[in-house]
Formats: sequence, C-alpha cells, structure tokens
Amino acid sequence: MTAYDALMSHDRQTRALGQISGRLSWDQETMMPSGAVDQRAEEQGAMEAVLHARRTDPQVGGWLDAAEPETDVAAASIREIRRGFERASKVPAELATALARLTSKSQGIWAEARRANDVAAFLPVLEEVVALKREEAQAVAGNSVNSPYDALIEDYEVGITGAELQTMFDGMRPGLVALRERALAGQAGPAISGSFACDVQMSLANEVAERFGYDKTRGRLDLAVHPFSSGSGDDVRITTRICEDDPFNCLYSTIHETGHACYEQRIDPAYRLTPLGHGVSMGVHESQSRIYENQLGRGRAFCGWLFGAMTDRFGDIGVADADAFYAAVNRVHRGYIRTEADEVQYNLHIMLRFDLERALVGGDLTVKDLEAAWNDRFEADFGYAVDKPSNGLLQDVHWSVGLFGYFPTYSLGNVYAGCLYKALTSQVSGLDAALAQGDPSPATTWLQTNLQTHGGLRLPKDTITHACGEEPTSAPLMAYLEEKFTALYPD
Amino acid sequence: MTAYDALMSHDRQTRALGQISGRLSWDQETMMPSGAVDQRAEEQGAMEAVLHARRTDPQVGGWLDAAEPETDVAAASIREIRRGFERASKVPAELATALARLTSKSQGIWAEARRANDVAAFLPVLEEVVALKREEAQAVAGNSVNSPYDALIEDYEVGITGAELQTMFDGMRPGLVALRERALAGQAGPAISGSFACDVQMSLANEVAERFGYDKTRGRLDLAVHPFSSGSGDDVRITTRICEDDPFNCLYSTIHETGHACYEQRIDPAYRLTPLGHGVSMGVHESQSRIYENQLGRGRAFCGWLFGAMTDRFGDIGVADADAFYAAVNRVHRGYIRTEADEVQYNLHIMLRFDLERALVGGDLTVKDLEAAWNDRFEADFGYAVDKPSNGLLQDVHWSVGLFGYFPTYSLGNVYAGCLYKALTSQVSGLDAALAQGDPSPATTWLQTNLQTHGGLRLPKDTITHACGEEPTSAPLMAYLEEKFTALYPD
Repeated sequence: MTAYDALMSHDRQTRALGQISGRLSWDQETMMPSGAVDQRAEEQGAMEAVLHARRTDPQVGGWLDAAEPETDVAAASIREIRRGFERASKVPAELATALARLTSKSQGIWAEARRANDVAAFLPVLEEVVALKREEAQAVAGNSVNSPYDALIEDYEVGITGAELQTMFDGMRPGLVALRERALAGQAGPAISGSFACDVQMSLANEVAERFGYDKTRGRLDLAVHPFSSGSGDDVRITTRICEDDPFNCLYSTIHETGHACYEQRIDPAYRLTPLGHGVSMGVHESQSRIYENQLGRGRAFCGWLFGAMTDRFGDIGVADADAFYAAVNRVHRGYIRTEADEVQYNLHIMLRFDLERALVGGDLTVKDLEAAWNDRFEADFGYAVDKPSNGLLQDVHWSVGLFGYFPTYSLGNVYAGCLYKALTSQVSGLDAALAQGDPSPATTWLQTNLQTHGGLRLPKDTITHACGEEPTSAPLMAYLEEKFTALYPD
Repeated sequence: MTAYDALMSHDRQTRALGQISGRLSWDQETMMPSGAVDQRAEEQGAMEAVLHARRTDPQVGGWLDAAEPETDVAAASIREIRRGFERASKVPAELATALARLTSKSQGIWAEARRANDVAAFLPVLEEVVALKREEAQAVAGNSVNSPYDALIEDYEVGITGAELQTMFDGMRPGLVALRERALAGQAGPAISGSFACDVQMSLANEVAERFGYDKTRGRLDLAVHPFSSGSGDDVRITTRICEDDPFNCLYSTIHETGHACYEQRIDPAYRLTPLGHGVSMGVHESQSRIYENQLGRGRAFCGWLFGAMTDRFGDIGVADADAFYAAVNRVHRGYIRTEADEVQYNLHIMLRFDLERALVGGDLTVKDLEAAWNDRFEADFGYAVDKPSNGLLQDVHWSVGLFGYFPTYSLGNVYAGCLYKALTSQVSGLDAALAQGDPSPATTWLQTNLQTHGGLRLPKDTITHACGEEPTSAPLMAYLEEKFTALYPD
C-alpha cells in the first residue's frame, strides 16, 4: 500500500466517524428524549476523543510527508488533510480540552443571561472564552504572516484574511445603509395574514424542498428549534421550524437549508467520505443556501407560483395578488435580530459582529467595552437604539461557544451568491419562466454542474471563480440589492 | 491512577461508543432515509473497527492482571470486562472480519431466498456461515470443558450449557405438546374484529407503555418493521409495528419491548456506562419482556382493563365481554411462524431450533439434511406439516447472520419469567386488583427492586435466584401454562 493509499484509508474511516458524530447532533436536536442529555454529552465526549486522536495521529504526518499525488484530486485531498492535521496538531491537547469544557459551560450561562436580559452575568465567562480563543489563535497562527484572527477565519473559510473582508465590507456598508434608509422611509405594503395550520405548512415545505431538488430518498425534513442541515453524501438531513402566524419562517428556513443540503447531496459520488466530499467552506455553503432562499426563492418569479400555492392551501392570506405577495415576502422592517433580518439589513448585522470580534481577538476591544461598542454601532448603522440586551449583544449563540471568525462567512456567502446569480442569469435562459411555474431546476442544475458537484476540489474562492468565470467581488450583490429594493421602495 | 481506575475509565469510553453504535442501528430501523444504506454500512464498519480495537487493546489485559477489586461491584465489573476481553482476544482478527463480511452478505441472500421460497438458494451460504461459526466456537472454547456450542451460548447467556438446556427443554416438551393438542382440539372463542385506526392504536400503545412504567423522558416509541428495544441508561428507545386489522400486534409488541426497556431504564444509575449498567443476559432480558407481555399483559386481570380501554376507543370489537376478550387475547391457533405463536406453542418453536442448531454446530447434522430435519420435527411437535419454506426453515433471520446459541435464551426467558411470577404472586398482594384497574405498578415495582436495579451485578442464573429466593426451574412456567390454558380450554 502506498503512503497515499494508507493516508486516504485512515482519513476515510475518520470521516465516517465524523459523519456519525454529526448524526448524533442531529438526533439530539430532533429525536433525543430530554432526559438523555447528560448521557449523550458523555457519548459525544468519547467520540470526540476518538476523532481527536485520529486527527492528530503522528502516522498521518508520516503519510503526508511520503504521499505523492498523481492527480488533481489526490493533490486536493492531500492539501485538505494536511491543513486539518496541522491545525489539530498545533493546538496543545490541554488547550483543546479546556476550550471544549469552557464553551460547553459558557453556552448554558449565555442562554440563561439572554433569558434574564443580564449582560453582566455573561461577560465574565465570555472574557474567559475570548482569552482561550486568542491563545488558540496564536498557537495556530504561529510565525505565519497571518494575524490570530485570520487563523480563526481559516477554520471556516480558507484563503481570505480579516483585512480583505474588512475592505470588502467597508465598501458595501454605505450602500446598504442608504438602501435601509430608503426602505424604512418608504411605504411597505401589508404583511400576509391568515390561518396557517402547522401540518399544511409542513406539507408545503416538503413540496418546496423537493421542487428545489432535495432528494428525500437520501434525506429527511424534521422540526427543530433552530433550522440546520446535517451530514454529507447519501444522508443529508434538514430541519425547519413552524410559527403558526408566520408561514415564511418555515418556508424560507426550509429553502435555505435545502440549499445547504443540495450542495452536499450533489457532490460527485466519487468524493464521498473523502476530503473533497463535503462543501468546501462556510462561505461557499452559505452562497448555496442564500441563492436558493433569496435570489431564487424570494424572487418575483417564484413568488408568483408561491402565491398561488399558498392561497390554494390557506385561502385568503391578506394580500390581493402576486405583486403584493412579493412585496410582503421582501418587506424591509425595523428589527434587532439578525436571524429575522431581510436581505438588506442582514449584512449590516454581520458587519457589526465582524468588526467587534476582530477587535476583540486582535486586542483592540475589551469584553468590558463590548456592549457599549455594540449599541453605538447598531444605532449608527440601523438608525435606532437597541432596546434590551437580548435584542443586542446577547442575541447570538456564536461567541458563547467560541465561534470567532464564523460570522463574516455569512456575508461572504451573500457576496458569492450575488456573483453566482449574475453568472447564472447571463448563461441560462428561461430561468424566470420556469420559476414562475414553481420549477427552480434550470437554476439548480446550473449550480450543480458548475459548483456543487466539485465539492472540495478547489479552494473556496477558486470554486466561485470557476463557476462564475471571474473572480468574486461584492459588486453583483450590491447591484442586485439596489435594483430589487429600489423597485420595491421607489422614490 | 490505579490499574482498576484505568481499566474502568477505558471501559467506560468503550461503552459510550457502544451506545452510539446502538443508536445508529436504531436510526437505521426508524429514521434513516433508504438511500443512505451503503454509506451507513461504511460508517458502522468504521465504528466497529474502533470498538474492536478498544476491546482487544493489550492494555486491557495488563490492567485486568493488575486490578485489585475492593468491592463486590468492582469484582463483578472486572469479571464482565475480563470475559469480554478474553472472548474478543481469542478470535483471530481475520476470522472476525471474514464472519462480519459473510453474514452481511448472507443476510441478503436469506431475505431473497425467503421471498422466493427457495431453500436451495440459501443453503450454500448457510453452509459457509456454519463452518465459520464452528471455527469461531472452537477458537473460543479452546481447551475448556465446554463444547463449541456452549461457547456460542456464552455470548448471550453465561453460566448455562447446551446439555443443561437440553435436559430442561426435554422435560418441558411432552407437557407443551399435550397442552397444544388439548387447545387445538378444543373450542376457541371468537377473535376480535373491528376497525382499528393506526393513530388510535399508537396512542393506546403509548399509554400502555407508560402504565407499565416506561419513562418517556428517557425514551421514545416509534414504528419499525421489527419491534425492538435499544440503548441503556437514560436513552432507551423502543419500537412497535401496526397492523390495521390486528391491534394486538402493536399492543403486545409494545408491552414486550417495554419490559426490555424498563429493565434498562431501572438499573441503578450508579452503574450507568459500566459493565453492570445493562441487562445481564439475553435470558434474563427476555424474562422481563415476557413477564410484562404474558403473565401481566395477557393475564385475566389486565385484560379486564384493556377490554374497557379498547371498546372506549374502537367501539364494538367483536367480543361481548372481558372474559371473551381474555379468551381472544390467549387464543391458541395453528400456525407456522415463531413470532406469531401463542404462549404454549412458542417454546416448541424454540426447542426445534435449539436441537437443530446444536446438532449443526456439534457436527451431528449437515446443512444438506437441515430442511428435512426441520420439517420432520415440526410435524411431530405441532401435528401438521410445513407448507412452504418461508413458513419453515427460512422464517427466521438468526442463522443467516450467525446467531447460533441465541434461540434457547427465548425459552430460558420464559422459564425465568415463570419463576419470577411465582415469587411475585407469593410476595405481593393486591396484584390483580391493581392490574384490573390498568395498573401493573405493584408488579413492576417488585421486579425493579428485586431484579432490574441490580443490572449485571450477579451472573444470570444468580440474578433470578436472588430475586426468587430459590434456584430457577421450569416447573413454575409449566404449572402456570397448564393452569391458564386448561381453564381456557376445559375438557
């Protein structure tokens, strides 16, 4: 057996075990009885110990040194395994254990502080988390030219730095603020209203997921508190949630997760359980979920079909026609919560978090000053003040569990979605005609062929460049948003 | 850290991983999308490799040699770990791998042969399975006084030999045959009939499970093709199945699995994820499922409550009163299939399989002669001839997957249930009065205190002796069956 074969065989088994760990997390969010939580924590801990030992196994280092790739696929596979191995090996085991222990504790403290609207109860443990994440980031960055924050970004998005993101986001912000001001000063049409039975919402969500290409023979749709997609290859499961008075919550969460799931389901089967057999980065993953959800799902054409599908099922939904329905789907509204934000304001939420977390990790902002910084920035970008901590600093789980460097991938995904939509519309004709019939397949087939099937073959940015035929920039997203929301909110 | 502490810590992590593997099997039978089957096989294979490496880790042998137990619990834990370690270490890795590969293939061949009623299509692979199992049995038995078949029994039931089982079963057989003849010659009352909506069946099954003590905060009830119980400690899940024209299928499968699940749920929490934290053997496990299902669930007292519960929910069910309902629940009927057999004929099914598989492993019967031997014995014991292979030799999955030595534990469980029921009724008053109100808790509390809570502390037979105050024999079961079915089928 060659070193490459030995490396791939070991890696394949590790990835199979990683899939199991992900399936356990799915189970915990969907099926697990409440009383099993402590036992499950111990089971997952045992699994993590096995995975960590395999990922840092010195044999992997030896195989990596000796492996000689003969194909592009082999070279890409070695590249991915090497990065994972070096990343895992750079962090001392004690630090990894301390972080795992701290963040499992701090998540509970955060949840309780959010419930009680009590920032002071959260800050001490957040301070500990930031300190350990800085330590981790420094261990990973080592003597490289990248900053510690860049090292954290790399866990989610390889090949982009904090400085590059800063430049991109700073360029977008004025336009987004202007769009937000225009929309909030303008006349919004009515929201939808009516009676939306849970089982009918769920049945429509299932239909819509399948229309967007979700293969139910290799996945399933369940309910969970937070929608997510889980797994790769032939077992990719998604969840959604249901609000009885807001069917868009269930529907657009489902379309979003369908985007993630289709990316996983449509990767070349030859890559299954290899380093190339899953979405290449969080940013590229989010580009899929966002283009499904926004450019396709919230576009005028598909809204025409959806208006009919909803009135068929729910009767009167409080809007007169498909145009009014489209306006209701895309209403820009005041709000504090990132996950409920519209396409315009969403990226402002991300930029706020990006700047603050980059300053925290870089040592330019202390946890003590974080709330004031959040509130000042929110008022500047959104035009109104945060009313309570659960609508401000305490709203997201991410920092409590040590996810620093993750937030920017959301907006990067939107930027990538903008690029992909521009390429898609320029290359595929009849897109809107099909969408108006409830058929996104011309779009999703293009995405499959040009992006999804390639999995992790290319680096994230190269994946987008390959699909679009040009390097990604924020211009297409900004142009799309300006055109869409200027039309929705005319002077 | 002492050798004992190191041993227990390693073992605990292995057991946590074992729980995960069991949870995956549950998922496969209940939730997994059909297209995920190949990927799941690879995931489970990776998990099995991890578990096998841990179970045969030479460090375990060192710790076992050095460990000094200071308590009964420690001594019992070491005893259990030692047996598992020695068992796993005796079988050469290549043989274990060959068996795993063969039985995963042979199960498919069996399923197809059963569907086609084609014995000849199954026998060649069965011959291979028997050969490998004999090899495995010889490796495990080694130079011990036990026969190879005894070594296989030990995988499911420690402390009993094929010869002992033979003596016990041969003693029971004439009485069972006589009871079967009496019942089939007698007058059976009507079966129930009516309309049994699936959701109502499932809701009643949930209620009955909880009445029998199943803790739904640490478990859940789902549908599966074959009912089973899965997991230990705080996450013990059960499944049932629904036939729209036979509600007893769902109900009594649920009560049966509830017996298994309550055994697991009610073990002393201090034993969780230790060698004592699960049911001690298949026979003792089956004693719990059987006493819940038969002595309690099919007894006259509980049938009185159940008749009311069913007529409340389903209206007319085709029987006039609780006595007629009780007779319908306990109807003895001609049939070929073990899993559908009544309390009288069930054990005859087991004894047939036990004698044949013991002869196969012992070399006294060839696979070539197996079908004739099955059919001759069936006609002798049941009084009518097998009509087709899917009702005969091909009906059970067990042999196709290498489960030899497993069948006798079903009847042993019935024997143990008989002993427990005798002790229970002699020690607890008011049992039937409570059961007549749909309340099995006086019985299940006694089982919890005297048996379930102790988990694997004592060897299987000692577990029963401890609970009953005397050594188990088949006499109580035979007396119970004779009394019950003589009354149901009077001269």
